[in-house]
Amino acid sequence: MKLFSSVNDVTDLKKFIEEALILKADPFAHKSLGKDKTIGLVFLNPSLRTRLSTQKAALNLGMNVMVMNLDKEGWALETEDGVVMNGTTVEHIREAAAVMGEYCDILGFRSFPKLQDREEDYSESLFNKFVKFSGVPVVSLESATLHPLQSFADLITIEEHKQIAKPKVVLTWAPHVKALPQAVPNSFAEWMCKAQAEGMIDFVITHPEGFELAEKFTPGAKIVTDQTEALKEADFVYVKNWSSYKDYGKTLPGAESWMMTNKKLEGTNNAKVMHCLPVRRDYELSAEILDGPNSLVIKEASNRTWAAQAVLKEMLEDLKK
Amino acid sequence: MKLFSSVNDVTDLKKFIEEALILKADPFAHKSLGKDKTIGLVFLNPSLRTRLSTQKAALNLGMNVMVMNLDKEGWALETEDGVVMNGTTVEHIREAAAVMGEYCDILGFRSFPKLQDREEDYSESLFNKFVKFSGVPVVSLESATLHPLQSFADLITIEEHKQIAKPKVVLTWAPHVKALPQAVPNSFAEWMCKAQAEGMIDFVITHPEGFELAEKFTPGAKIVTDQTEALKEADFVYVKNWSSYKDYGKTLPGAESWMMTNKKLEGTNNAKVMHCLPVRRDYELSAEILDGPNSLVIKEASNRTWAAQAVLKEMLEDLKK
Amino acid sequence: MKLFSSVNDVTDLKKFIEEALILKADPFAHKSLGKDKTIGLVFLNPSLRTRLSTQKAALNLGMNVMVMNLDKEGWALETEDGVVMNGTTVEHIREAAAVMGEYCDILGFRSFPKLQDREEDYSESLFNKFVKFSGVPVVSLESATLHPLQSFADLITIEEHKQIAKPKVVLTWAPHVKALPQAVPNSFAEWMCKAQAEGMIDFVITHPEGFELAEKFTPGAKIVTDQTEALKEADFVYVKNWSSYKDYGKTLPGAESWMMTNKKLEGTNNAKVMHCLPVRRDYELSAEILDGPNSLVIKEASNRTWAAQAVLKEMLEDLKK
Repeated sequence: MKLFSSVNDVTDLKKFIEEALILKADPFAHKSLGKDKTIGLVFLNPSLRTRLSTQKAALNLGMNVMVMNLDKEGWALETEDGVVMNGTTVEHIREAAAVMGEYCDILGFRSFPKLQDREEDYSESLFNKFVKFSGVPVVSLESATLHPLQSFADLITIEEHKQIAKPKVVLTWAPHVKALPQAVPNSFAEWMCKAQAEGMIDFVITHPEGFELAEKFTPGAKIVTDQTEALKEADFVYVKNWSSYKDYGKTLPGAESWMMTNKKLEGTNNAKVMHCLPVRRDYELSAEILDGPNSLVIKEASNRTWAAQAVLKEMLEDLKK
Repeated sequence: MKLFSSVNDVTDLKKFIEEALILKADPFAHKSLGKDKTIGLVFLNPSLRTRLSTQKAALNLGMNVMVMNLDKEGWALETEDGVVMNGTTVEHIREAAAVMGEYCDILGFRSFPKLQDREEDYSESLFNKFVKFSGVPVVSLESATLHPLQSFADLITIEEHKQIAKPKVVLTWAPHVKALPQAVPNSFAEWMCKAQAEGMIDFVITHPEGFELAEKFTPGAKIVTDQTEALKEADFVYVKNWSSYKDYGKTLPGAESWMMTNKKLEGTNNAKVMHCLPVRRDYELSAEILDGPNSLVIKEASNRTWAAQAVLKEMLEDLKK
Repeated sequence: MKLFSSVNDVTDLKKFIEEALILKADPFAHKSLGKDKTIGLVFLNPSLRTRLSTQKAALNLGMNVMVMNLDKEGWALETEDGVVMNGTTVEHIREAAAVMGEYCDILGFRSFPKLQDREEDYSESLFNKFVKFSGVPVVSLESATLHPLQSFADLITIEEHKQIAKPKVVLTWAPHVKALPQAVPNSFAEWMCKAQAEGMIDFVITHPEGFELAEKFTPGAKIVTDQTEALKEADFVYVKNWSSYKDYGKTLPGAESWMMTNKKLEGTNNAKVMHCLPVRRDYELSAEILDGPNSLVIKEASNRTWAAQAVLKEMLEDLKK
């Protein structure tokens, strides 16, 4: 594996989940694999779970880890080509990525969309430039449109907690105070659609009118705007806010009725509730759910380690070839 | 040891000091103890000594270390329960602590008091919530009211430098330009009172009227407001500013006469001078003392490593059980 | 080696280059040398290459690494002596350096000039105080007037890429949007003059009138203000902006004609082009050069690791004595 930026980078989804669970059962079994190998984790935006879980995964594999918070360390990158750099950006991503590639065997990279120009965000030009110029295997730590380590961890969590062979998984829009990227829901949809195609789950998406995700990430998903209808007999409910893709970057004020509550769980098959975190308590998701027996949110976060470790293990094995 | 937040978490004080000094003499003797164990050091406020010394202690024990400067990395935590999170806080401490507990075998946590609501600060609700929700052993890296790693290092330093069996230790208030927490003096008092109760030292506190520390941290301490009287025959003088506990968070402008100087040392038993650092030169403590033979301030800082290492060693041993 | 702050700290320049290239060929050969040794990397200014490459070098030698971004972590140091510290600085460099020296076997330190008082900057008082009070071997990660790890890496790069026994190396001034320190050009000149004295290269400096570097760093260098003349038959062109030493800290607006381009390379011996990075594309140096076959900028950055590793290896060997 040279690149992990989407479910499409995974050859065999079921085997990959299995691999992650084997690593979870025996985290240090491959500690010699990463000996004298260094991963650089590059963040253009703050990170808690992604940074710590990927760092932990790398340490479990015996790697060295170097973290670079470019935003906090005052390193403004130029991302456009053909620009005369006489402004505020201090270094072009061409040089910055290439240099980091010289110091690291594998790189992780996080960037966020600006939510202003849909075409630009959805081209993933920043992430793709980083991949191109770094010259080493790259794992996405979240890009403008996808967050594959999160979705892989989510799928692992579903596999661990499913009570029936083919559970019903519902992704539901939730309210939020600000405009958020579509990366997590896009990515969750992409992974769930793949899982559905492989017969592992049934997948439904529900959101208010106008909050349709980009079609390329939702092949085969059932999409309904009636939340009550969508939640019926759900085994897993994945709660997440996102801003509009159609009316790009716009939010929906006054949508508090979309908050997930115990009341809404009544129509489900005693569904387990998921969220990628951080979560706005009693705004996206009720505190009663988060503190109750149906919540899987901490377990999802915990599984981030094994998702990352499965990815890094494959990359390290490829480096040895 | 599951928690280190106060002298009360120590079973046998003398043995604990001894343990720290054994580690100082042979720092790498227990390097296999921390193999494949990870400590997360979480700071809500900047740290120099605490971060580096605890990191060093963990490395000496063979642990992995992950540092999280939540304040600098832009992660505003919600600490109140029952709040609708529609404001500026991005994550509740319930989730943040639980998640970090999933990635780490031991956590260190630093928070400061706001110095606005005494009851809130002295309830240690933030620290206690972190402990409760993290689900792993926690070492205080300074809390709203105590700084036990500092005080333990101070006591180790006194043990190393005492010339008589039962030295006189004086904690003296010092001037400062801003309102500081009471955590260091509370903690120093707590540890010295325990040491006094065990016959190791005599302990005196001196401060201006109105700067009495909370009584629960000063059992058995002799408290006087005449600094000259207090310093007589002192073997160790611990210099520190703190804001008022009574008139909560208030400072005392124009108190420059309380600054410790060589002149004041004349009445002592050629006392060694201590300070937790950082110190305001020629305002809290004279430069002549800091640069002279009586200063122990660097040695105290150095002993932070062994204090932390003794604590982490006990925690690691308990994890193995 | 107890100090690495200038080419004058190097005993045998040719042997030192050779040592770095041996390490490059076999990076992990001395991994036991740094066992249980800790390096602290202290930055008063942001760093990308220096931090990562020095961290990598230390890891290659088996060391522990602790990074301290004092500027970002809100730790304002007092550097003047005899000051009553009643202002905004929280800690004096005397204590800060001494404390860090207690936790680390080797320290790296970066500071920048303020470009306001030439005498102060060129006294290197801040760097020298850090060295003095830390009490351990110190490697400069760039100081007010020199950047020796960069220059050493540059010289290694020249050695690797030279086509003739004694290549012509030209340091040329370049335009920039803001006033930059003279540390990189001073340092490059210092190393190249030493290399020239040892018969390794011919060295020429070219810059606009008024941009003469301090004479103490340019002994034996040929200095011309006609760039075209200087570039003739050059084998290596080192491009860098610096502010004026004479009219201290002043820039030269409207100097775009000094930008290095392919057109200017025509007069050279198909010269390789170097820059320490970060570089302002199409302002200091044309994108066509950076993206073309003559650029060595990434290779220079890559060689930072081996320069740092050669220095740290010598320091570690001295610690064992």
